[in-house]
Amino acid sequence: MSQEQKIYQELKERVFAANLQLPKYGLVTFTWGNVSEIDRERGVIAIKPSGVEYDVMTADDIVVLDLEGNRIEGKLNPSSDTATHIELYKAFPTIGGIVHTHSRNATIWAQAGRDIPALGTTHADYFYGDVPCTRLLTKAEIESDYEKNTGLVIIEEFNQRDIDPQAMPGVIIAGHAPFTWGKDGSDAVHNAVVMEEIAAMATATRAISPEVAIQPELLDKHYNRKHGKNSYYGQK
Amino acid sequence: MSQEQKIYQELKERVFAANLQLPKYGLVTFTWGNVSEIDRERGVIAIKPSGVEYDVMTADDIVVLDLEGNRIEGKLNPSSDTATHIELYKAFPTIGGIVHTHSRNATIWAQAGRDIPALGTTHADYFYGDVPCTRLLTKAEIESDYEKNTGLVIIEEFNQRDIDPQAMPGVIIAGHAPFTWGKDGSDAVHNAVVMEEIAAMATATRAISPEVAIQPELLDKHYNRKHGKNSYYGQK
Amino acid sequence: MSQEQKIYQELKERVFAANLQLPKYGLVTFTWGNVSEIDRERGVIAIKPSGVEYDVMTADDIVVLDLEGNRIEGKLNPSSDTATHIELYKAFPTIGGIVHTHSRNATIWAQAGRDIPALGTTHADYFYGDVPCTRLLTKAEIESDYEKNTGLVIIEEFNQRDIDPQAMPGVIIAGHAPFTWGKDGSDAVHNAVVMEEIAAMATATRAISPEVAIQPELLDKHYNRKHGKNSYYGQK
Amino acid sequence: MSQEQKIYQELKERVFAANLQLPKYGLVTFTWGNVSEIDRERGVIAIKPSGVEYDVMTADDIVVLDLEGNRIEGKLNPSSDTATHIELYKAFPTIGGIVHTHSRNATIWAQAGRDIPALGTTHADYFYGDVPCTRLLTKAEIESDYEKNTGLVIIEEFNQRDIDPQAMPGVIIAGHAPFTWGKDGSDAVHNAVVMEEIAAMATATRAISPEVAIQPELLDKHYNRKHGKNSYYGQK
Repeated sequence: MSQEQKIYQELKERVFAANLQLPKYGLVTFTWGNVSEIDRERGVIAIKPSGVEYDVMTADDIVVLDLEGNRIEGKLNPSSDTATHIELYKAFPTIGGIVHTHSRNATIWAQAGRDIPALGTTHADYFYGDVPCTRLLTKAEIESDYEKNTGLVIIEEFNQRDIDPQAMPGVIIAGHAPFTWGKDGSDAVHNAVVMEEIAAMATATRAISPEVAIQPELLDKHYNRKHGKNSYYGQK
Repeated sequence: MSQEQKIYQELKERVFAANLQLPKYGLVTFTWGNVSEIDRERGVIAIKPSGVEYDVMTADDIVVLDLEGNRIEGKLNPSSDTATHIELYKAFPTIGGIVHTHSRNATIWAQAGRDIPALGTTHADYFYGDVPCTRLLTKAEIESDYEKNTGLVIIEEFNQRDIDPQAMPGVIIAGHAPFTWGKDGSDAVHNAVVMEEIAAMATATRAISPEVAIQPELLDKHYNRKHGKNSYYGQK
Repeated sequence: MSQEQKIYQELKERVFAANLQLPKYGLVTFTWGNVSEIDRERGVIAIKPSGVEYDVMTADDIVVLDLEGNRIEGKLNPSSDTATHIELYKAFPTIGGIVHTHSRNATIWAQAGRDIPALGTTHADYFYGDVPCTRLLTKAEIESDYEKNTGLVIIEEFNQRDIDPQAMPGVIIAGHAPFTWGKDGSDAVHNAVVMEEIAAMATATRAISPEVAIQPELLDKHYNRKHGKNSYYGQK
Repeated sequence: MSQEQKIYQELKERVFAANLQLPKYGLVTFTWGNVSEIDRERGVIAIKPSGVEYDVMTADDIVVLDLEGNRIEGKLNPSSDTATHIELYKAFPTIGGIVHTHSRNATIWAQAGRDIPALGTTHADYFYGDVPCTRLLTKAEIESDYEKNTGLVIIEEFNQRDIDPQAMPGVIIAGHAPFTWGKDGSDAVHNAVVMEEIAAMATATRAISPEVAIQPELLDKHYNRKHGKNSYYGQK
């Protein structure tokens, strides 16, 4: 096995393991989710094959592609959402892994077409502000290059609102479902678990207190307690 | 064992296995569900026996009947809902398996007497439009041939709304619960799991955004991405 | 072991097994539930001891009492709710087992002080009409003989509304929680599981359709399909 | 091992075991929770280390600190919430263990900024009245000594409302999450489980009956049935 092959093998193993975390954390029904990870040095991504059940998938089923979508390793079709992943990797140079699921509570907010509001410190520990919901895609954007355009409306939303994808590691697509990202595939899954939890909390919180929102200074405090140069959560 | 017996045995094994998927996926409490499958060549269906617990049932308990409801194999009474299954098989020639459950979230919409609205791509991936809720049965329809009439109001609803049962693999009965179908029993269970999930999402989505609905072009896109001749989801 | 002792031992074993069904079906947190069963011939009941965890309890911990509450077998204190059980056994001669839990969804309706409305066939298969919520106890009833008075308000509610406890195997106490009953302890647990499920469905159904109720003829049909002399559900 | 070391070791073992109860009871996602316990004779507390996953943590990872926050045993950083625990131990001399989580349903009420209302006997069995929600911290309180100030606003709330922390073993912090306490770490976890359950019940109860509250005499009855000198629940 060449050095290149070995690196691809390790990448596939990591992406395979990260994909298996989706059913473990209850984020997927059937095959409704996928994790990818990028090797920026080599300009390749590894991603779940399309429509393959988690309990029969092996590491060898993971597909390796270049950033034009050409298949480098693997015999199966990559996730039908691959073009969305590629656009996000190209536009957000700081991210290393991406997750897409239809996890119930985050999807509810996506279907409602509304940002997941920042309502407490659980949210603030991971997402620095409301989780943005994209605009609806136009008819033309849906009918042609749909998955690529899904990536482009995410990027448009982050640009227009001037959001840093490192401080906001996820998004919901109007009428569709969430994407999250992180420094690698496993970290992106971690953020998908968190988004699902804060989405569930937000639904019920707003049912009790329709107008409530987090204090800006509490959002700052909790986000910065866990992230950035003055963070002091965990072991350093 | 004759060829006929062997074919019946395999049919019963498949229907038995499909019935066991109901508790596995959390769709049933006690015995509140049943799966059937049809062998169209022989004009017979196999269905769960009535009121038998899933953890004691064996493949030999599955009942084989002709389409007039005469028992061909098995000693037990078939599901009390058998007449509904038979009407659906007769009216919808493209379906091969049927599931009836009282799964919580789909039943909630049935009790509410309202269609499960198509609100996002999770729904659109499987159900091409709102999942129809039938009209209420009349007093006469309830008091005589109730289970057969349940089938007839489903068929009436599909005819009046001009719905293709292949593009809409399920229905909810007003005041009662869901039925789903598919190419075989296992596929019908798959659709029952999906209906339960989209029903749960719809309840909470409408609580946040009471008027929201999916864009028609997004419904088209996602349904056709997974179904029909230009589909490109999964491995072909 | 005398015949009497053997009968008591079997009674305790059955009550022990029925109590263990409560955590199995997710009806209890910690020790918040109890099952009893009556031997009407001997005029004794067996019931869970008070405050004992399910995972350390043994059949020998089950307490046997006469209908005046005198302990006949067992060293532990009986459930603090014993006096309620005794009143129900005395007033409702057709019941053989009783369950009390604080299961989440039934308790929600009890706290809300409202009957669990009959909204569909799932309910109608077991409970012939709305599950009654008792009136609030008076200050005097709470302060003296509270548990006995809890039984008496249940009986009062059934008498005033002219409800047959066989056709309505449960009740919710305003501000408190549910009781269910059945032909024995295990059957009472079965009805507790059903009440929890229909309570959950009712909450969400009413959130979608605030005014909906089941058709009276559908209630009749489903209740009588499973109960009484013309029933045809299950194996006879 | 000296007597002192042995006592510390036992303290760490207890705190370790109590921390593992958090994932067992479904109260935590990832590392979002911590349990501490105090040895009042020695003036030390033991607490979970910050950001360590439950499935890799060992008893030796538990950190022992004095009440000024100086580390006496352990190599890891203590929970970032340690200063809150310390303030509570100093102000509430009757408590022996403290739990902090972001359990979903209690957190929802914290985010809503509202007391968890006492609506039934499940609540009254453990919490003698509405579970108080603190005021919001000021900008200054958040920006400097945040965790200590979190403890101080809890204490302020209990003082201003004249609440006895023994009769009210928990609180929710506005915009944040719950704390509970008890006679030791394990008892504090027990109360955290209860708070989570009653918070879930309260949300749904108020959705059905927006104005309902428990009768004061029923609150008295149930609280005193389980607590204090005339209690008669359980085995004595």
